[in-house]
Amino acid sequence: MSVLMGVLRSRHPAALAAKVLLLLGGLLCVPTVAYAAVDGETQFVFNTFLFIIFGVLVMWMCAGFTMLESGSVRTKNASMICLKNIGLYSIAGLAYYFIGYNLMYVGVGDLGLGGLIGSFTLLYGPSANDIALVGGDESAMSAVVENGYSTMSDWFFQMVFVATAASIVSGALAERVKMWSFFLFTLALTAIIYPVVGAWTWGGGWLSELGFQDFAGSTIVHSTGGWAALAGALVVGPRLGKFRRDGSVRPTPPSNILLVTLGVFILWFGWFGFNGGSQLALGSAADAVAISHVLVNTNLAAAAGVMAALICSRPILGRMDLFAGLNGAIAGLVSITAGPDITEHYWAVIIGAIGAVVCTAGIKLLEKIKVDDVVGAIPAHLMAGIWGTLAVCIVAGGNFGVQLLGIVAVGAFVFIVSWVLWWVLGKTLSVRVAPQVERLGQDVGELGIEAYPEFVLMPEEEDDDD
Amino acid sequence: MSVLMGVLRSRHPAALAAKVLLLLGGLLCVPTVAYAAVDGETQFVFNTFLFIIFGVLVMWMCAGFTMLESGSVRTKNASMICLKNIGLYSIAGLAYYFIGYNLMYVGVGDLGLGGLIGSFTLLYGPSANDIALVGGDESAMSAVVENGYSTMSDWFFQMVFVATAASIVSGALAERVKMWSFFLFTLALTAIIYPVVGAWTWGGGWLSELGFQDFAGSTIVHSTGGWAALAGALVVGPRLGKFRRDGSVRPTPPSNILLVTLGVFILWFGWFGFNGGSQLALGSAADAVAISHVLVNTNLAAAAGVMAALICSRPILGRMDLFAGLNGAIAGLVSITAGPDITEHYWAVIIGAIGAVVCTAGIKLLEKIKVDDVVGAIPAHLMAGIWGTLAVCIVAGGNFGVQLLGIVAVGAFVFIVSWVLWWVLGKTLSVRVAPQVERLGQDVGELGIEAYPEFVLMPEEEDDDD
Amino acid sequence: MSVLMGVLRSRHPAALAAKVLLLLGGLLCVPTVAYAAVDGETQFVFNTFLFIIFGVLVMWMCAGFTMLESGSVRTKNASMICLKNIGLYSIAGLAYYFIGYNLMYVGVGDLGLGGLIGSFTLLYGPSANDIALVGGDESAMSAVVENGYSTMSDWFFQMVFVATAASIVSGALAERVKMWSFFLFTLALTAIIYPVVGAWTWGGGWLSELGFQDFAGSTIVHSTGGWAALAGALVVGPRLGKFRRDGSVRPTPPSNILLVTLGVFILWFGWFGFNGGSQLALGSAADAVAISHVLVNTNLAAAAGVMAALICSRPILGRMDLFAGLNGAIAGLVSITAGPDITEHYWAVIIGAIGAVVCTAGIKLLEKIKVDDVVGAIPAHLMAGIWGTLAVCIVAGGNFGVQLLGIVAVGAFVFIVSWVLWWVLGKTLSVRVAPQVERLGQDVGELGIEAYPEFVLMPEEEDDDD
Repeated sequence: MSVLMGVLRSRHPAALAAKVLLLLGGLLCVPTVAYAAVDGETQFVFNTFLFIIFGVLVMWMCAGFTMLESGSVRTKNASMICLKNIGLYSIAGLAYYFIGYNLMYVGVGDLGLGGLIGSFTLLYGPSANDIALVGGDESAMSAVVENGYSTMSDWFFQMVFVATAASIVSGALAERVKMWSFFLFTLALTAIIYPVVGAWTWGGGWLSELGFQDFAGSTIVHSTGGWAALAGALVVGPRLGKFRRDGSVRPTPPSNILLVTLGVFILWFGWFGFNGGSQLALGSAADAVAISHVLVNTNLAAAAGVMAALICSRPILGRMDLFAGLNGAIAGLVSITAGPDITEHYWAVIIGAIGAVVCTAGIKLLEKIKVDDVVGAIPAHLMAGIWGTLAVCIVAGGNFGVQLLGIVAVGAFVFIVSWVLWWVLGKTLSVRVAPQVERLGQDVGELGIEAYPEFVLMPEEEDDDD
Repeated sequence: MSVLMGVLRSRHPAALAAKVLLLLGGLLCVPTVAYAAVDGETQFVFNTFLFIIFGVLVMWMCAGFTMLESGSVRTKNASMICLKNIGLYSIAGLAYYFIGYNLMYVGVGDLGLGGLIGSFTLLYGPSANDIALVGGDESAMSAVVENGYSTMSDWFFQMVFVATAASIVSGALAERVKMWSFFLFTLALTAIIYPVVGAWTWGGGWLSELGFQDFAGSTIVHSTGGWAALAGALVVGPRLGKFRRDGSVRPTPPSNILLVTLGVFILWFGWFGFNGGSQLALGSAADAVAISHVLVNTNLAAAAGVMAALICSRPILGRMDLFAGLNGAIAGLVSITAGPDITEHYWAVIIGAIGAVVCTAGIKLLEKIKVDDVVGAIPAHLMAGIWGTLAVCIVAGGNFGVQLLGIVAVGAFVFIVSWVLWWVLGKTLSVRVAPQVERLGQDVGELGIEAYPEFVLMPEEEDDDD
Repeated sequence: MSVLMGVLRSRHPAALAAKVLLLLGGLLCVPTVAYAAVDGETQFVFNTFLFIIFGVLVMWMCAGFTMLESGSVRTKNASMICLKNIGLYSIAGLAYYFIGYNLMYVGVGDLGLGGLIGSFTLLYGPSANDIALVGGDESAMSAVVENGYSTMSDWFFQMVFVATAASIVSGALAERVKMWSFFLFTLALTAIIYPVVGAWTWGGGWLSELGFQDFAGSTIVHSTGGWAALAGALVVGPRLGKFRRDGSVRPTPPSNILLVTLGVFILWFGWFGFNGGSQLALGSAADAVAISHVLVNTNLAAAAGVMAALICSRPILGRMDLFAGLNGAIAGLVSITAGPDITEHYWAVIIGAIGAVVCTAGIKLLEKIKVDDVVGAIPAHLMAGIWGTLAVCIVAGGNFGVQLLGIVAVGAFVFIVSWVLWWVLGKTLSVRVAPQVERLGQDVGELGIEAYPEFVLMPEEEDDDD
């Protein structure tokens, strides 16, 4: 090394040049002695691929909601649930492309609106640099790489989140909401309501400025869907005969337990993309470590949710209940979603377990106040979502006041706008199928098909009060 | 920088050496100032991983076809569809290993055959360099990396495409084609017919030379499967009683709508791998941007397909039809498959929507000409595939004549060879089960099992004319 | 180059400095002339991402087992299978977090126990370096990167393997084992029994020292699950009426063939993660090539398994049997799992085919010796697992004696401990439901729900001897 030292002290031009090279090497390469950092374009590929592959996993959650919901309803309404779910995913994708994404992300806070909404321009598309690069203009490379990820890969990842929020609504209102009214509500939810909530938070708006923490959307996605579902359930009303005149609740067990279970497994599987992808980057060791942390917490919370729900279902619901256990998985997943990055693993177990208890108690509570939520979407997504958003404060010392403000603000906005929208739809198109269609089932009554046309079904018991 | 300038002008040997280093540094490292390019081996890993993970997604589409088809047929034939689908995937994998891949890719155009076929050698295997590298011979590394991807990862990705083409056939011929004849046809399709089409195009043969554009296989995969299905449907004939003497068409609604819907979601999910992986590389920012573009177009076209099919099903089919909506998703996906890389996003919406209308009208058309296609495979894959292949010209100024030539050439080749093959099978082994087996169902009649043995099923209505 | 040569011979300090730079460049950069190696942090991201994404695929296998098993049992027990499967996955995840992982990996062989077990400390968590890095301490980077992967990503990948072993047991004992006893056994299996076997092998214990080869777990995962299932099947006994007084075997066909088939497709799909991820690294071209090799072998063995089982089912079982074909896929997959990295592709075809024949014959054998294995888990996982572990010797010249020793040692340990555990559970909590519950079905008898409550089911035939 003494020769190097000699060079460093020399004034010979060549020595100086060597020093410059050493310096450059020091800046660019010295870390390679210990480890070589991920380079710019490689980071870009990793980040973009994360959005793509984890976005694909989240898209798959729509199949999970479809199986969960269509297996939960009575067979006479199962086809309608299939239609609603593939329809809502389609509407969400189109609405978020035409309107939603710009409203959520473009120039939030630059419109003199205090970070309330983004831009109302139509159509989101790839950045000019992305287009130029794919068109062969290598000079666009620097700007592309500097952005960190392909712009449309981010759109894709955000789009599947909107669809998740919309999926929550369809389950709660199953078996009586009119198809076209539901689709119109879905359009409003995915084009405007969800994007506004998103603008406040992930878009960089006012709640984000205050420090509201919601890593993957306990509040932003799940409570938003839950509030919209609650508003709908109140306006649309319970199913005929669900709450009997004598005060008892008519049991409406899932018609196909195997597909409900499959749906829950799909959701659990897709949730790894939902939470893992919310790290929004894979291009460094720190990101990869963080995503691993997130996935482990996601799994522990769900596992704890299942066991806690199974155990607490006996005292709360009167028997060990498989459906409660399955919803416990969902509730555990929703609960951990606000802070899987900052929660220690044993805390994830506790948060998931408490979320499942909240959810199981919520199922009972909704029955008590005569709100008819067919699949337990409100307990699993809204109630567990609130718990998860608050739990961030416990495990990571977040600001309790800000978390509460976020919960209340999002809740008030989504619930009120949704309620008004459902009410207006009810006064115009009507939100509820006719009683004879409801008794007959929406499959035959509205769609003209049956979910299982060749199977002999049990005659339905008489409703006692409709 | 003046010192550097001095060095650059100096003739001192050390200064010259420094200049050489600067030059080398310039070649290798200067881009890092703006961004660091993805290095060779890293590119290799990305590309190979793309084939692997997206190939796995495409493999999953076989489960989607299985659910779509077995849920669409009557329960008495549902087990047979399961058997045919797992059988065809197995046969495709073996045939493409033993014969197909070499025929499609190895030395196409070098045999004095004008780019018609590749090599008839048996067994495809890893390249010698890949074997050497894994065996620990680091000197093989340069050649391995230069190839861009592991040779067997490409085989894997191409193999799942063959299986997709074969899956299309099983649905169209369901409920009456004989199992072993179907398996023999599958063997020919996956060992020879599809690989010949592939040799003309992706293998670098004559259609490729002319500039035929088909990014992920609207024609090469989907129309090929569709033509083979059409030939089979004509030779095998319609199901007993499907077309009544009085000219009416006997409705045969899907027996399990939930599994049909699940199948469509699986296909949609897998299609991200199908189209995204067809970029064939992930090792640069341009590739990652292109794949994002492809996935967004894939999703938009499918979403538009669902909505367009639901809307146009009322005027075309007489009612809003869930099954048409589900097929609309498939048709939208097939339509965009020829050019998702070069289509602007709003055009993907239009192409997908038109594809779904084509498909819905095609369902009606097939009924009119008394071709019995149980699951609508011909409208969704063949007709939408033709539309998609032509649509490339509209959105990207492709050569209309060449696209049409490709469609016609592939169609003529696949249809004629398939027809002859089905005909020969019919004259020898017979391609159709006996009428009593068809009435009883292939499950009990051919397999000796039932799909749902414990469920009570509706007695079947009498066929009026067989 | 003569100038460079001049510099290399010069003693001028600047020239020496330049030589040092050349040397450093040679170490760090010369390979870039031919190809650029994957850098340290990039390797880390690749490796970690492999664990994550392939671990997610393996998690999905639990859904596959659930569908396979719940579709295989009679409808009256299908809900219970759903509950057991989501429960076992939850228990496995918690047990392996609290106890199992440490026991399998931490300090095996350092406890003076001869490589028998690891540490009995509670809770596994991220490494201190991982925590520091995510917390923003960049100085931890070198140590993190040097580890090669995020510690919790490895935990996640290993955890889903434990769950796979536990899933095997639930199918074999279906329709009569008591839920809580099954859950307690699962706890022991995933917290202790499997981790001990894992410590001997993948944890670096005594079998590993001897050179026992089992790439992804033909013995370690599949036979372990199979031995535990066999012990359970012997202690719990066959279902009432399965083996009739007259020596005949009562057929109990799957109640939902479509979901069984779906389950097999899920398992096949997930197995790409199971075997591919067992390469444990993606950070080099050699790893990527190896994983491609593994995936191709995995697919070929499964495909050959399906066809071999279909063909041999006629002579062995008396008819071409779909269920045998589906189990043939599993058996093919299990067979190749011990050596997919070192097996040539055509050998994978042969190994998978033989595995399927072994499995099909095993189904017959178990019936002969009156062991009641509801889903064929013991033939598919245990018998094919033994065959696969031995087949490594044929294709790769492994040490036959060591392979046999491993099979026997694992078998003896797992079988004896499991048998004792089942026996103790039987004497205390009881492992079997009451006969009236078994006749009624566990769904109504134990859970109080039905899997398909709205469907009319066939009256069950009378058991003749219970």
